[in-house]
Amino acid sequence: MDMSIRIFITGGTFDKEYNELNGQLFFKDSHLPEMLELGRNLVPVETRTLMMVDSLEMTEDDRSLIAEHCMKSPEKRIIITHGTDTMAITAQKIAEKVRDKTIVLTGAMIPYKFGSSDGLFNLGRALAFVQTLPPGVYVVMNGRYFNANNVRKNKETGEFEELHQGI
Amino acid sequence: MDMSIRIFITGGTFDKEYNELNGQLFFKDSHLPEMLELGRNLVPVETRTLMMVDSLEMTEDDRSLIAEHCMKSPEKRIIITHGTDTMAITAQKIAEKVRDKTIVLTGAMIPYKFGSSDGLFNLGRALAFVQTLPPGVYVVMNGRYFNANNVRKNKETGEFEELHQGI
Amino acid sequence: MDMSIRIFITGGTFDKEYNELNGQLFFKDSHLPEMLELGRNLVPVETRTLMMVDSLEMTEDDRSLIAEHCMKSPEKRIIITHGTDTMAITAQKIAEKVRDKTIVLTGAMIPYKFGSSDGLFNLGRALAFVQTLPPGVYVVMNGRYFNANNVRKNKETGEFEELHQGI
Amino acid sequence: MDMSIRIFITGGTFDKEYNELNGQLFFKDSHLPEMLELGRNLVPVETRTLMMVDSLEMTEDDRSLIAEHCMKSPEKRIIITHGTDTMAITAQKIAEKVRDKTIVLTGAMIPYKFGSSDGLFNLGRALAFVQTLPPGVYVVMNGRYFNANNVRKNKETGEFEELHQGI
Repeated sequence: MDMSIRIFITGGTFDKEYNELNGQLFFKDSHLPEMLELGRNLVPVETRTLMMVDSLEMTEDDRSLIAEHCMKSPEKRIIITHGTDTMAITAQKIAEKVRDKTIVLTGAMIPYKFGSSDGLFNLGRALAFVQTLPPGVYVVMNGRYFNANNVRKNKETGEFEELHQGI
Repeated sequence: MDMSIRIFITGGTFDKEYNELNGQLFFKDSHLPEMLELGRNLVPVETRTLMMVDSLEMTEDDRSLIAEHCMKSPEKRIIITHGTDTMAITAQKIAEKVRDKTIVLTGAMIPYKFGSSDGLFNLGRALAFVQTLPPGVYVVMNGRYFNANNVRKNKETGEFEELHQGI
Repeated sequence: MDMSIRIFITGGTFDKEYNELNGQLFFKDSHLPEMLELGRNLVPVETRTLMMVDSLEMTEDDRSLIAEHCMKSPEKRIIITHGTDTMAITAQKIAEKVRDKTIVLTGAMIPYKFGSSDGLFNLGRALAFVQTLPPGVYVVMNGRYFNANNVRKNKETGEFEELHQGI
Repeated sequence: MDMSIRIFITGGTFDKEYNELNGQLFFKDSHLPEMLELGRNLVPVETRTLMMVDSLEMTEDDRSLIAEHCMKSPEKRIIITHGTDTMAITAQKIAEKVRDKTIVLTGAMIPYKFGSSDGLFNLGRALAFVQTLPPGVYVVMNGRYFNANNVRKNKETGEFEELHQGI
C-alpha cells in the first residue's frame, strides 16, 4: 500500500508568529518541517504551502484552489493545516469535489511558537488518522475525527462538535 | 460504538524529570493529564498508573501485570505509555494473551518536561490510532504503527523499524 | 543595608497572553510571581500591579500615578515592568519627581508566555542592577542600563540606545 | 570606561543535554550564544570555552587553569559559568589569585535545554552584576551576589547562602 502523505499548508493560528517590532501576529514560514522533525516522524511526507492566510480571510477562490490541489495530488492521503474558524466550511467544500481520497484538516487554537500549543498534538493525530481512515474528508480537532458533513466549531467554547448527534 | 479509551502508565522516558538536587533523572507524577489538557483532548479517557519504571528494569512479573490489566479492562481501546528500550518485548507479551482489543504502546525519546519532547506528538498519534485500528497490539513510534510481532527498536539510530519487510 | 525590593507591574508585552477564542493578545494576570520562582529568586521582593496596559495607551495620568507610587514606596529600590514603546518617556517623568531611590524600568520584546521571551533575561538583569546602581532612574534593556535622561527605543531595530553618545 | 565582558565556560548543569540514545546527560556545545541572542544582549561579550565538566569532577588543575585565564584576560569584567556543587570552592581559589577584576561565577540548577531553567535568569543577573560591582570575586545565584569568601551551597535545599551572617 502506498503510504506517502501530502501535507498542504494554508496558514491559520498554527503558523502564526509574534512580530516584536509592532506587536502584531503574522505569518513568516511554516513550522511544519520543524514539528515533523521534533516528532521524529519517519512516514514519508511531501509538504507544500498553498497560501498563508487567517481562515477568516479565506475566499471562495482560495477554497477552490485547495480543492483543486486535493484532486490533482497523486497521493491518496492528504493533510491540510488550516485556521479553525472556517475549517468546517473548507472541509465541506472539498468533500463536494473529492471522494476517493482520505483528507484530514487540522489546526491549532494556539500558535506553535507560543510554547503551549495544541498544534503538535493535533498534527500527530492527523498523521495517524490519515493513515487509517477510509476515503472521505475529515476534521481532526480535540482528539477526535469528524465527518466533513457533520462538524462545526463552537464559537463560545472554541471546541469542535458534531452538528447532529447519532449520525 | 463505545469509544472510551483506557490509558495505562508504566513510566519510561516520557515521564522522567530532572532532580535538581542530585542531577539525576527520576519519576515523580505522570504528565499525561497535563498533556491531554494541552492537546484539548475531548475523547473520554481513563488514566491509571500501573508502575513508574525505566523499561530496562521492567521484569517478567511487571509485563504479566500489564497484560493482566489489559485483559481485565472493560475498555476495548487501550494505550500504554512505556519506555522505548523494551517496548517491543512487552507488546509481544501482551499480544500472546490479548486478542480482542486494540492496544497501542507508545513512548518518547526525550522526557516531556525537557521542552523538545516527541512525547506530545506520539501521544496524539496513539490516541488517533487506537480509535481506528482493528483489534491487535501495536507499537506507535516515529509516526508509524507497527504490529507487535514485527517491530524492534534500532539501538544505533533510536528509531523503530520492522523486523521483516513485506509482512 | 535594606535590600528589600518593590516591583510595580504596569503591563506591556511582558505580560501579554494569547486569547485562543478570538486570536487577540490580552492581559490576564501578571507572570512575575511565576518568573521569580523559576529564577529561584531569594531576594525579598514585594509585587504590586498598578495597571495592565499597552504602553502606547498609557496616559499622563497613568504616568503620574506610577511616579506617585514610587515616591510613597518605603522601599529604596524599585523595579517597574513596562511596555517598551513609551518606557523612556515614563522613565523621564519619574526622574523629574523622584531623586533618592534606585528605580529600574524593564520590559520585553516578546511575551513571556510565548516561549522565547527576553523577559526572563531582562527581569534577572533588572533585579541585579537595582541592587547595585546608585540612586537614579534607569531603563534596563538589551543587557545594558541607560540613564532615564539619555535613552530611546529605536523603532526600526527595536533596540534601546543612547540619545547622545559620551554622556 | 571599557565595558567589554569576557565569559569563560566551564560546563555544569547549565550546559547539560539529554542523550536520547542512552538516557544519560552529557555536554555537547555551550548554549551561551543562543541565550545571549534570546536576551537581545547588546553588551559586547567575548565567549571562550575552557572545559566542559561536571563541577564534582573538577580538579585542582582545572581550577588553576581557570584562575590563570582570569589573570591573563585583558578584560576587567569576567563571567564564569560553572557547576553549582563546587562553585564556591572555585570562587575562593580565584579570589586568592586575582584582585583587580570583577569576576562573577554563575550557573543553573536545571539545564537550559530542559525548558524551565533558571539559567537564563542567572545569566541575566551575572551580566548586570559584572557591570556594576567593584573589583572582587562573586557568586551570583538565587538573585543575589555573594562574596567569594562568604558563600556555600546548602546541599539540602539547593540554595546558596552566606557562611557567616553580618559580614
